[in-house]
Amino acid sequence: MSSLCTVRIGSTTRAGRVEGDDIVILDAADVGAVLRTGNRTETGDAIPRVTADLAPLILAPDKIICVGLNYLDHIRETGSETPAAPTYFAKFANALIGARDNMVLPSVDVSTRIDWEAELAIVIGAPVRHASSAEALAAVAGYTVLNDGSVRDYQRRTKQFLAGKTFEGLTPVGPVLVSASELGDGSGLAIRSSVDGVVKQDSNTDQLCFTVVDIVKDLSTITTLMPGDIIATGTPGGVGAARTPPEWLGDGSIVRCEIESIGAVENRCVLPD
Amino acid sequence: MSSLCTVRIGSTTRAGRVEGDDIVILDAADVGAVLRTGNRTETGDAIPRVTADLAPLILAPDKIICVGLNYLDHIRETGSETPAAPTYFAKFANALIGARDNMVLPSVDVSTRIDWEAELAIVIGAPVRHASSAEALAAVAGYTVLNDGSVRDYQRRTKQFLAGKTFEGLTPVGPVLVSASELGDGSGLAIRSSVDGVVKQDSNTDQLCFTVVDIVKDLSTITTLMPGDIIATGTPGGVGAARTPPEWLGDGSIVRCEIESIGAVENRCVLPD
Repeated sequence: MSSLCTVRIGSTTRAGRVEGDDIVILDAADVGAVLRTGNRTETGDAIPRVTADLAPLILAPDKIICVGLNYLDHIRETGSETPAAPTYFAKFANALIGARDNMVLPSVDVSTRIDWEAELAIVIGAPVRHASSAEALAAVAGYTVLNDGSVRDYQRRTKQFLAGKTFEGLTPVGPVLVSASELGDGSGLAIRSSVDGVVKQDSNTDQLCFTVVDIVKDLSTITTLMPGDIIATGTPGGVGAARTPPEWLGDGSIVRCEIESIGAVENRCVLPD
Repeated sequence: MSSLCTVRIGSTTRAGRVEGDDIVILDAADVGAVLRTGNRTETGDAIPRVTADLAPLILAPDKIICVGLNYLDHIRETGSETPAAPTYFAKFANALIGARDNMVLPSVDVSTRIDWEAELAIVIGAPVRHASSAEALAAVAGYTVLNDGSVRDYQRRTKQFLAGKTFEGLTPVGPVLVSASELGDGSGLAIRSSVDGVVKQDSNTDQLCFTVVDIVKDLSTITTLMPGDIIATGTPGGVGAARTPPEWLGDGSIVRCEIESIGAVENRCVLPD
């Protein structure tokens, strides 16, 4: 299976299949629709990859679940103990933006503590509940990159992270879905973030405490995962909040999150009008 | 505006308007569709209310947001301090069931610590972002009852509540949407739960720390609330986990959550096949 993406064309969106330097347009509104229906019919159109306007890979996932504290180096930098179970929190769909979109920051009177978190994101391809390890892996369509943009003062004003994690338009996702047939269980991939060209996070998905299979299996005990669901697997050490002094994204910052064999989301931060 | 509900008819669902003992069927799949489109066209059919098979009021909300620790008496029983900001966590749509549906418990090897939480739930009627207090209230379509079914060991195995809060099929919601034109800001309503006929929670929405307006206004700083979004406003004292000894829902338990001027969700707990 080739890589898939979602592109904006005029006022609508279409799924696309990456073919070399081109994107072959499919008759589906987004990658989520391709996963739900299995329909990969081509429209006959193709556009150059370099000028494509990438929408969020999945426009309206049924679920966006994030795993917190899942890299050994990030666990150390936050001063936490190695967990016995995965920590889960949620985002809602309107948090998502495309791989090249601007991140429109909250106005400065709301927050100036905007942080980055490069993450390997699982995309589910088939309904799965009460999965064995083999069933868990079989339900994974593939992987993409997600920047778990975080508003740290909202995240920490109570004990529950949701408020700081689901700010509208602060979660780039993409650029493409690379299939599990190519990337297996998602282990062994270099993961990196940079801000204005300076590397901030530099790790490997081998550092995951709870693996892709662990996470899908565990979540499937709780709920039926559905095609198009996105599960972000946590971020390595090097986030802004854990730096001395802390570093935050501001107007004009360029933040890039990249994973080996998948690609990068790279987004310019801008203040609201 | 009369009360609205969502009913199952054969293999589909329809929104309905309550008219005395009848439900007048509307040409919309659920109350969410009515709120999104404003379409209240009648199909010409009506069914008796008493035999109606109630579906979740909103089948697929864009967001289900729950407020934790929001009643003064519940704050006391959990040993928490009075909060400076609302605590938010999420549920996903497949947690929802209808007002009379069975609650299919997790199998006993997964958890036996299933708890109830009677809550006043806000249903959003219009998109709202960066709201004033007046705009916040104007965006509220109305109110319903939600039982925030909670799997306490999963809720507490990490610091983030999501795992224990979004178990599939443990969150009854309904029976009807009563409009804000009737209930105003949702204050001053008696709220009560019982298990097997024994009252467990008995409070009033006057006890809310953060009011409906506070919550909608605050959330609108973070994200655009959309028609059909459900916001559960927290639960009063008297949940099972805080009792001595703790009490849990088990096979055959009948749990009822009721709010003055809205109605009740009443659900039988059953073990999975």
